Amino acid sequence: MSKTNLQMPLGFKCAGISAGIKKNGSKDMAMILSDVPAVAAGVFTTNQVCAAPVKVCRAHLAGGTVRAIVMNSGIANACTGAEGIVAAKDMCAETANVLGCSAQEIFVCSTGRIGPQLPLDVIVPCIGKLAAQVSNDRIRETAEAMMTTDTRPKVSVAELEIDGKPVSIVGFAKGAGMIEPNMATMLSFIVTDAAVEPAALQNAPKTAVDGSFNRISIDGDQSTNDSVLCMANGAAGHMPINEGSKDWETFFQALEKVCFELAMLIVHDGEGATRFVNVNVSGARSDQEADLAARAVANSLLNKTAWAGEYPNWGRVMDAIGYSRARVEENRVEIAYDALPVVAGGMRSETPQKELIKVVSQESFAININLNLGGGVATVYTCNCTEEYVRINVE
Amino acid sequence: MSKTNLQMPLGFKCAGISAGIKKNGSKDMAMILSDVPAVAAGVFTTNQVCAAPVKVCRAHLAGGTVRAIVMNSGIANACTGAEGIVAAKDMCAETANVLGCSAQEIFVCSTGRIGPQLPLDVIVPCIGKLAAQVSNDRIRETAEAMMTTDTRPKVSVAELEIDGKPVSIVGFAKGAGMIEPNMATMLSFIVTDAAVEPAALQNAPKTAVDGSFNRISIDGDQSTNDSVLCMANGAAGHMPINEGSKDWETFFQALEKVCFELAMLIVHDGEGATRFVNVNVSGARSDQEADLAARAVANSLLNKTAWAGEYPNWGRVMDAIGYSRARVEENRVEIAYDALPVVAGGMRSETPQKELIKVVSQESFAININLNLGGGVATVYTCNCTEEYVRINVE
Repeated sequence: MSKTNLQMPLGFKCAGISAGIKKNGSKDMAMILSDVPAVAAGVFTTNQVCAAPVKVCRAHLAGGTVRAIVMNSGIANACTGAEGIVAAKDMCAETANVLGCSAQEIFVCSTGRIGPQLPLDVIVPCIGKLAAQVSNDRIRETAEAMMTTDTRPKVSVAELEIDGKPVSIVGFAKGAGMIEPNMATMLSFIVTDAAVEPAALQNAPKTAVDGSFNRISIDGDQSTNDSVLCMANGAAGHMPINEGSKDWETFFQALEKVCFELAMLIVHDGEGATRFVNVNVSGARSDQEADLAARAVANSLLNKTAWAGEYPNWGRVMDAIGYSRARVEENRVEIAYDALPVVAGGMRSETPQKELIKVVSQESFAININLNLGGGVATVYTCNCTEEYVRINVE
Repeated sequence: MSKTNLQMPLGFKCAGISAGIKKNGSKDMAMILSDVPAVAAGVFTTNQVCAAPVKVCRAHLAGGTVRAIVMNSGIANACTGAEGIVAAKDMCAETANVLGCSAQEIFVCSTGRIGPQLPLDVIVPCIGKLAAQVSNDRIRETAEAMMTTDTRPKVSVAELEIDGKPVSIVGFAKGAGMIEPNMATMLSFIVTDAAVEPAALQNAPKTAVDGSFNRISIDGDQSTNDSVLCMANGAAGHMPINEGSKDWETFFQALEKVCFELAMLIVHDGEGATRFVNVNVSGARSDQEADLAARAVANSLLNKTAWAGEYPNWGRVMDAIGYSRARVEENRVEIAYDALPVVAGGMRSETPQKELIKVVSQESFAININLNLGGGVATVYTCNCTEEYVRINVE
């Protein structure tokens, strides 16, 4: 958000406004619009209880191309039954009406409180207003309209070149609490003027999400509304790229970079979070087991509160890997905080406590766990749990 | 702890003293002693990283009978390698030496910080002192010596009659944080003067624990030291009972009652906890799935913080059952807070918010979730997460 002259990719416009859904008058509706139908992709929550807009987006994805994303914050349109589905469809219908396209070409998202029905009388009249305000530089307003407990808007940009043409990717995200691997209360919209074959675009966000949004953990809860939506409108003017094309790696790496930056912005905006911890597990019997061990450490409330202090409580790390479903042999475990050995052979190492305290007192540090049982590796990015987190979520 | 004249079962004595392991001078060593070898049983943590005394107790159980339990608080003797095993064995050897029995007839327990080695120079000399102080009414001192972050000692008593003879069961427990089904940082010692066949006593605590200690959840973490130890010395003087004996049900129910009361004392002493919630799930496809759903709700940090407020945030309950591994069909879900319907058909019910607020403002209430998919039921007992919990665990 540092550049003031940040622009949307060619052929994209966006806007964010205050429609009046949030009682405090903050921005609460946004639109992202492509001049032409864009190739579309989506990755959604795995929660069995999922919001109406998620169901509608999944159905609309079948159409292949999308013109616009319309979204609101403040109310999640989750657990709202048939009425909620009608409301999500109504948002699409009005957007399609305003833009002169089919309702199937609209993605719809909501985030906020679970339960209440959307105030369509407030929302529907604002869709035309949004469409009238879209411009290629209202990026900050758009990101602001996505916020719930976020303290700051989240945007990441990548610029690359494909076949001699400049290409850009702009990603938006919201998310601060209720974030667990497998995405949660997390929305992200990623738009690019690259030309991408539909099948290739379908696969790309899933893989990018696995290495980014699915690697962060704030409070271990998963939400009903998580969605990562992707649009590629081809306005950059190069030949469509495909998996295996010469420029594919360049494109995918840029996409992954945007997802990863957004994921890090989310962790660093964790509700009440003041310290950021990268949990790296190596030496597991498989990557999957490494992941189980890393998540057990990252999601442990005892660890998260320990990290709010400045005390190298490695016992809680040992405890968490021990009850994870990863195979652990206590006397093989090695743990380092950054480069400093903390545990060797399952026991406290010789590193002086003073040096360890220095490491865990930093704003961010890494916990490097080697299970010494195989070649499996995984990383989870997480934050501490402070009294402030509790204060926010009590309310 | 209300009765001042509380007595140990016949033939049992106990004591708790301050040995100086805890820096603040609180009691930190205890002994429970039977005049004669008692039939013994134990249930232990499932954590792969388990404390030295747990390993030693498991081995000593093979002997069948036990004379005494010796324990310390302040240091967990976990992640202490071969030196830790030697220390646990040394505690047993010195106790056996003082009592004039074999070391195999001693149970040893530790609870407290993971990592440091036990100060044997402090502990060993106190074992004789403990043995000299044991009496049949030092129950409170014994329970106090078990405490770590507990704010109060935990004892439960049952009195029954078997074959015309009075029988008593006395249970001790410690535990306040790091409590998750499958026991955790939880120690419990249960002693009775009943005469019980060894094989029957072996099975009984496991079953009783499943319905009590394994049904509570404070912060979802499991510990390295959990142990439930059981001794039955037969001093009541009736014929030994067995599963299927006429008095077996009476005995087992009394044992279960003691375990359940101790489990409730632990939840009600949850670190910083001020509100207690019974999560009841019915209508799951199986008891196991009901259990998964109940634990997802009970362990969700978002729910635990919501319960610190006085707001009926049922959306977080829907969210948690949705991401649990129990099968959920959103539109079949019914939720009631105590008897008040909150969710019907997966959506908010008509109950006025004011009445719901009244329910969740109580010191304890029940969340009754019916998945309407089968006959599976489960209950988990939990508490809220307050800023005080974080404060305690930061330290």
